Amino acid sequence: MLKRKGRQTIQLLSAPVIKAHAAVAGKKEGQGPLKNCFDLISEDSYFGEESWEKAESHMLKQCFTLACDKGRLAPSELDYVFAGDLLSQCISSSFAFKDSGLPYFGLYGACSTMAEALSLGAMLVDGGFGENICAITGSHFCSAERQFRFPLEYGALRAPSSQWTVTGAGSAIISSSGSGPQITNVTTGFIVDAGITDANNMGAAMAPAAYETLKAHFNDTGRTPNYYDAIFTGDLGILGRDIVQDLFKKDGVTLGPEYMDCGVLIYDRLAQQVNAGGSGAGCCASVLCGHILDCLEKGIWKKILFAATGALMSPTSSMQGGSIPGICHAVSIEMEGA
Amino acid sequence: MLKRKGRQTIQLLSAPVIKAHAAVAGKKEGQGPLKNCFDLISEDSYFGEESWEKAESHMLKQCFTLACDKGRLAPSELDYVFAGDLLSQCISSSFAFKDSGLPYFGLYGACSTMAEALSLGAMLVDGGFGENICAITGSHFCSAERQFRFPLEYGALRAPSSQWTVTGAGSAIISSSGSGPQITNVTTGFIVDAGITDANNMGAAMAPAAYETLKAHFNDTGRTPNYYDAIFTGDLGILGRDIVQDLFKKDGVTLGPEYMDCGVLIYDRLAQQVNAGGSGAGCCASVLCGHILDCLEKGIWKKILFAATGALMSPTSSMQGGSIPGICHAVSIEMEGA
Repeated sequence: MLKRKGRQTIQLLSAPVIKAHAAVAGKKEGQGPLKNCFDLISEDSYFGEESWEKAESHMLKQCFTLACDKGRLAPSELDYVFAGDLLSQCISSSFAFKDSGLPYFGLYGACSTMAEALSLGAMLVDGGFGENICAITGSHFCSAERQFRFPLEYGALRAPSSQWTVTGAGSAIISSSGSGPQITNVTTGFIVDAGITDANNMGAAMAPAAYETLKAHFNDTGRTPNYYDAIFTGDLGILGRDIVQDLFKKDGVTLGPEYMDCGVLIYDRLAQQVNAGGSGAGCCASVLCGHILDCLEKGIWKKILFAATGALMSPTSSMQGGSIPGICHAVSIEMEGA
Repeated sequence: MLKRKGRQTIQLLSAPVIKAHAAVAGKKEGQGPLKNCFDLISEDSYFGEESWEKAESHMLKQCFTLACDKGRLAPSELDYVFAGDLLSQCISSSFAFKDSGLPYFGLYGACSTMAEALSLGAMLVDGGFGENICAITGSHFCSAERQFRFPLEYGALRAPSSQWTVTGAGSAIISSSGSGPQITNVTTGFIVDAGITDANNMGAAMAPAAYETLKAHFNDTGRTPNYYDAIFTGDLGILGRDIVQDLFKKDGVTLGPEYMDCGVLIYDRLAQQVNAGGSGAGCCASVLCGHILDCLEKGIWKKILFAATGALMSPTSSMQGGSIPGICHAVSIEMEGA
C-alpha cells in the first residue's frame, strides 16, 4: 500500500511520537527572547574545546545526551541517528558520533537538515524499521563565519540582509511508542533555484523553496494555513519571511501572524544586531527542540507545521559565480486528538 | 511489526528491485579493466563544463538520465532522489538536481554514500513510501584532489598507500515492481575511529569500519561469507582489503577470493599507477552500477553483498590533527529465487 498523498507528501498513519527533545544554545542565543527555552546555554563559545569545529561537535554530543536523558533512554536503545551540519564533510556530526556505536546516517540538507532528519526518521519508524531514532543537527557562529564568510578577526561589515548563524543544536527522539507530539505528515521539497547569487541574501535565496514546499503541503493534504495553530519556516529572516508572504499573497492566500520564522524568533533583531535574523542548521533545530515542542506539550499550540529551509551552495560554488539553490522540507507535528 | 534482524540489519521482505542502473566514468577509468562495463566514458575531464566541480555535477546529471532511460522511466515518475558527493556542502549533487523538480534528500556518507542511498531508498520502497527512488553518487579526481590534497598543478608525489579518486558516477533506481536484482537486507554501520591520522592511508582508516559492518551483517542474518557469490567493499584498496581479511582471520573466518574491493577492481593498479587502488564515492558506485549489477543480471553471480566504505574526515579536521573516522554500510543484493 502506497502511503503517499499527492506528489510530495507522506501521511504517517502510525503518527510516530517525539518522545524527547533537547536544545543547546550559545551565549548570544541565551540572551535572546527564547533564553528560557534552552536546556543548556554555554557561556563559552569553545564549549571547553580547542577549536570552534570541535566546540560544535561537543555541543552536538551534549544535545544528544540531554535528549536521551530527558527521554530516559540509554543511547544504546536508539536504532539510528540521522545527523548533519554545515561544516564541509559534516565533521561536527561525524566526530560527535564517532564513539557512539550507533547506526549512523549522515545527511546534508544545509539548514534544512532538521526537517530532513525528522522526515526520514519518522518514515523509518512508521515503516517498522526502528523504535527509537534520533534526529539531530546544529551550527556554530564562529565555525560557519570562517568557513563561509571571513575570519572573525577581520571584523568584516555585515550587509543589512545578512543573517547571524546561530550557535545552537537541537535533537529529537522519534519513537514508535510513548507520548508526545506526533509527526503526522512529511512533505519533501525539491531544490528551487531562484537565481540569487548574493551570499549575503540567503533569505531571498531560500524563500521560493519554502513557498513551493508549503504550497505542495497544502495541496497534497487539502489543508489550508489556518488548519495549523502555527507555521514555522527555518531561517529566512525578516526579508525571506516577507517574500514567502508575498508569494502566497499572489495566490490569494494570506499567511497571517500564525506564520513565523525561527530566524526571526531566536534573536531580538535590533538590540542584538543580527540584521535580518538568525540562520544556520542550529537555528530552527534549537527553536523546534527548545521552544516549539515545549509549546505543543504545554497545550499552547496543538498543530504546527515545521518547514526548515536550506541554502545548498558552498564557498566554491559562490566563488565560481553559481547561484544559491534552496530547499525546504516540512513536517506536521500535532498533539494526539488535536 | 519491527523489521529488524539483530542490532544493525533490516530484512526487506518485499525485496525492492533495482529496476535500472547506469554508470559513467572518466577517461582513466575507461582505460581500466572495467572499461566495457560503463554506459558512458568521457574523454573530457571537464565534461564540457568550465570547472571540475561543474564537470562532476554534469556527470551526475548524465548518470541520472541514463538510468531513467534504461528503466524507461520519465524522471517525473521518481518519488525521491537520494544523492550526495564528496565536495564541501555536496554541491555537485545539489547543482545536478536543482532543476529536476524531484523531492530530494541530500546525504553525506563520503565514499559510503552509494550504500547509504540504497539502504534508505530500499527501506522507503519497502515501507510503501515510494514506488521509484533513485540512489546516486559520484566523485571526480580533479575536484577531489584540489579540495582534499593539493592543486593538481603542484604535481605532488603520492605515497605508496595513496589511492586515486575515481572520476565516475553510479545511479540505481529502486522500485516496488518490475524485475531485476533485489535488495534483501540492509546493514547500517556505526562510525569506527581506529585512530589513523594519515590522510594518505584511507584504506587503513576505513578497514575497521568495513570489518565491523560485515561482522554485524553475518551475525544479524546468520549468514556466513560463503552464502554470497561475491562480497565487495567500496574503496579500501589493496592495503585496506588486506586489513579486513586479517581482522576476520583473527576471528577464524576466511574471506577468500569471493571477497573483492571496488578500488582494486577498477584500475590496473601497476600499469595505471594508482598506488593502493581507487577511491571516492564514484568508485564503488560506478563499479556497482556498471559491473556488479550487470553480472547479477547475466547470472554470473546470484547473491552479492555490497559494503561501501567512507572516511568521515575533512581537510579542516585533518589540519587540526584529528583522526579519520570510518563508516561502512552494506546491502545484500540477490536475484529472485537465488
